[in-house]
Amino acid sequence: MSTMAGLKPKHFIWRMEGNVALIQLDRPDRKNPLTFESYAELRDTFRALPYADDVDAVVFLPNGGNFCSGGDVHDIIGPLVDMDMKGLLAFTRMTGDLVKAMIACNKPIISAIDGVAVGAGAIIAMASDLRLATPEAKTAFLFTRVGLAGCDMGACAMLPRIIGQGRAAELLYTGRSMSAEEGERWGFYNRLVSVDALEAETLSMAARIAAGPTFAHGITKTQLNQEWSMGLEQAIEAEAQAQAICMQTKDFERAYRAFVAKEKPVFEGD
Amino acid sequence: MSTMAGLKPKHFIWRMEGNVALIQLDRPDRKNPLTFESYAELRDTFRALPYADDVDAVVFLPNGGNFCSGGDVHDIIGPLVDMDMKGLLAFTRMTGDLVKAMIACNKPIISAIDGVAVGAGAIIAMASDLRLATPEAKTAFLFTRVGLAGCDMGACAMLPRIIGQGRAAELLYTGRSMSAEEGERWGFYNRLVSVDALEAETLSMAARIAAGPTFAHGITKTQLNQEWSMGLEQAIEAEAQAQAICMQTKDFERAYRAFVAKEKPVFEGD
Amino acid sequence: MSTMAGLKPKHFIWRMEGNVALIQLDRPDRKNPLTFESYAELRDTFRALPYADDVDAVVFLPNGGNFCSGGDVHDIIGPLVDMDMKGLLAFTRMTGDLVKAMIACNKPIISAIDGVAVGAGAIIAMASDLRLATPEAKTAFLFTRVGLAGCDMGACAMLPRIIGQGRAAELLYTGRSMSAEEGERWGFYNRLVSVDALEAETLSMAARIAAGPTFAHGITKTQLNQEWSMGLEQAIEAEAQAQAICMQTKDFERAYRAFVAKEKPVFEGD
Repeated sequence: MSTMAGLKPKHFIWRMEGNVALIQLDRPDRKNPLTFESYAELRDTFRALPYADDVDAVVFLPNGGNFCSGGDVHDIIGPLVDMDMKGLLAFTRMTGDLVKAMIACNKPIISAIDGVAVGAGAIIAMASDLRLATPEAKTAFLFTRVGLAGCDMGACAMLPRIIGQGRAAELLYTGRSMSAEEGERWGFYNRLVSVDALEAETLSMAARIAAGPTFAHGITKTQLNQEWSMGLEQAIEAEAQAQAICMQTKDFERAYRAFVAKEKPVFEGD
Repeated sequence: MSTMAGLKPKHFIWRMEGNVALIQLDRPDRKNPLTFESYAELRDTFRALPYADDVDAVVFLPNGGNFCSGGDVHDIIGPLVDMDMKGLLAFTRMTGDLVKAMIACNKPIISAIDGVAVGAGAIIAMASDLRLATPEAKTAFLFTRVGLAGCDMGACAMLPRIIGQGRAAELLYTGRSMSAEEGERWGFYNRLVSVDALEAETLSMAARIAAGPTFAHGITKTQLNQEWSMGLEQAIEAEAQAQAICMQTKDFERAYRAFVAKEKPVFEGD
Repeated sequence: MSTMAGLKPKHFIWRMEGNVALIQLDRPDRKNPLTFESYAELRDTFRALPYADDVDAVVFLPNGGNFCSGGDVHDIIGPLVDMDMKGLLAFTRMTGDLVKAMIACNKPIISAIDGVAVGAGAIIAMASDLRLATPEAKTAFLFTRVGLAGCDMGACAMLPRIIGQGRAAELLYTGRSMSAEEGERWGFYNRLVSVDALEAETLSMAARIAAGPTFAHGITKTQLNQEWSMGLEQAIEAEAQAQAICMQTKDFERAYRAFVAKEKPVFEGD
C-alpha cells in the first residue's frame, strides 16, 4: 500500500485529517505567493496522488487570512522578464502541468478561499472540483494587470464552463476582482461560509465526500474531464462503459445490501 | 402518415392533448420508479417519435405528486449486483440509449417536475429540452449514494452545460438534492410554478411551442446537440447550412405573408 | 501603420474615441434593421480590423433608444422567400461570416444594449465579448417567430455557453424576449446601467480595456475562441504556448518595471 500521510514537503504545509489531505501555502506575511519551487513540488505531489491509498480527497486551505497571491513578483516575474523562449515555455508548461496533475489526480479537490486568491491562486481555486469561500474572498484572474493574456493554466477553457462565457471574458479582459457574492451567484463558489466556519465546513464536506465510494468518485472526476470536448453521443457511450465498471465494485453491492437491511452503507473504495 | 396517438404502452401512461404527447410513469405509490421494461419501452417510444406526424412536442408529467424515483432498488439494483460485465454493459447502454433517443427524437421535450426526481428520474429531467418545477421539486443525481459514479446516462457531459461545472460537480460528488429555488437560480428549471398550476402551465408552454414552425424546431434541436463539441467556426458554417434549409420551408413564407398582411402566422410544420 | 480612423462606411455610423471604434446602425426610425448592404459592410469592416493599428477595442452603441431590429422584413426577408438554395446559402454564410469576422477581429468588442435587440441584433450582442444593457433592453432570438430555426449565426453554439443550455433552449424554441433583469442574472449582460449612463459607462469600460496590454488581449480573445472545443489537456498546453508568447512582449516587462518602481504601468500593445 502506497501512502502519502508522511509526506514532508519543503515548500508548503501538508497534513492529514483522516483520509483527507490538507495543503496550505506557507508565506502568510506575503499572502502566500507561489515560487518556482512550490509550483514544482505541488505538481509532483499531485502526480503522486493517484497512487496514494491513504488519501481520498484533497483540501486547499488559506493561511493567515489569504488563499494565495499567485506567482511572486520578485521570485518569478522578475526572472521571467529576462528569460528566453525555451525557458519561458518550460515555465508555462510547468504551471500548466500543475493543473493537469490536479485534474488527473483522481481525488476530489476542494478549495477554501479567504482573502486574496489571485493569479495562479485563482487558477488553483478554478482547477479544484469544489470551492467554498468567505464573504472576504477576492478572486482575480489578474494576468492582464501584469501585461499578460487571460489564457493562463487553462483559464480560457475552464472559467467559461464554471461561470459562463460572458462573465469569464470580463474577468479575463479586466483582471478585476470577483466578489464573494458574485462568485456564489455565478457558480464559482459552491457556498459562502463565515471566516470562523470556513475550515470546519470545508473539512466536513471533504470528509463526507471521502466517506463515499471513492473508486466511483475517481471515475466521476475522470469523466467530468474526459467528456469535456466529446460529442454528446460519445459521452453517453463513455458513461455506459464507465458506470458498468463501477457496477462491479463491492461498494455498489455494499450500498444495495445496506439498503435492503435498512442500514447506512459503509463504503470502502473498492 | 405515421401516427402515435393510438400508442398503448404497457409500462407508462401515454395520452395526447392536440399534437402534444404526455408521458407519466405509473407506480405513484412507489414514486414512479423505472424498471427494465419501462426503460426499454420508453427508449423504443422515443426512437419511434421522429416518424410520428401527429406529435410535435412531448411532456413528462409527475404522477401522484412525484416525478420519478429512478431505477427501482428491488427490480433493477438487486439484479445488477449479481450481473456479469456483459449484462451490466447491456443495461448501462440501454439506459444511455433512452437519453440518445430523447436527444434524437426531433421534437422538443418538456419535463414538469414535482416532488421526487432522483437518479434516472433526474436524468430524464436533465435530458429534456425545458424543465418546469414546483417549489416542492427535489432533484438529486444520487448515484454516489448507491456506490456508483456520477457519470450516468450523460450527466457528466450535460449537467455542467446546464448549471455550470462547479455546481454540477457538487451535485454529482455528493448526491444531494437540488432545491427548487436552487434549480431555478442555476438554470436547471426554466420556471417555478405552483403545484396547482404545473400541468396547465406545462401544457400551455408545450402547446405554444408545438404551434410554432415544427420542422424548424426539429432543426433547432438537432443543432443544439450536433454543435455540442464543434469548433466555433464549424458551428457557424453548420448553422448557415441548417438555416438555409429552413428558409425553403413554407412556414418561412407563411410567416412573411402573415407579417405583410399584419396577421398572426399559422405554421404547419412544412 | 494601417489605420481605420478615417473609415467612411455607407451603411452604418463609425467614429473613434481615442483608440476605441464606435459603431451605430443608422435607421433609428425603424429601430436600426440590418440590410444586405450593412451586413456586408460590417463583415468587411471586422475583417479589416485585425490590421488596424489605431483600433484597440470596438463598441456597438444603440441609436435612438434601440440597438438593432435584425434583418429588415422588407429588404431581407421578402427577397429570401423567393430565393433559390444557392442564394439562400450565400446569404446565411454572409451573416455567419459577420460573426466569424467579429470573433477573428482580434480586439475586444463591447455591445451596449438599449431597447430592441432582436434577431441578428441579438446575435451581434451575443457575438460580442462583453455586454452592458439598460433596464429597457429587450433581447430576443426571435427566429422561430418568422418560421426559422434557432440556429442562426452560431446561436445554438454560443448562447448555451453564455447563459446555460436550458435557458438558451427556452429562448431559441419560443423566441421570447429576455428581460434586462434576466439577462443580468443569467450572465448575458455583464452589468445593467441606466439609459443616461449607458454610453459613458460603455466607453469607459472600453477605454480601460483598450489601455491594457492590447497584444495580450488579442491572445486572450484568440484562446477563448480557439479552445472552444479542445480537450482540457490540449487547452492547457495551448495556453502554455500562448502565454509564453506574451511573456516576450515589452508590455510584460513594462508591468514588471512599473511594479518595482511602485508606478502604474503604461501599456503600449507590443
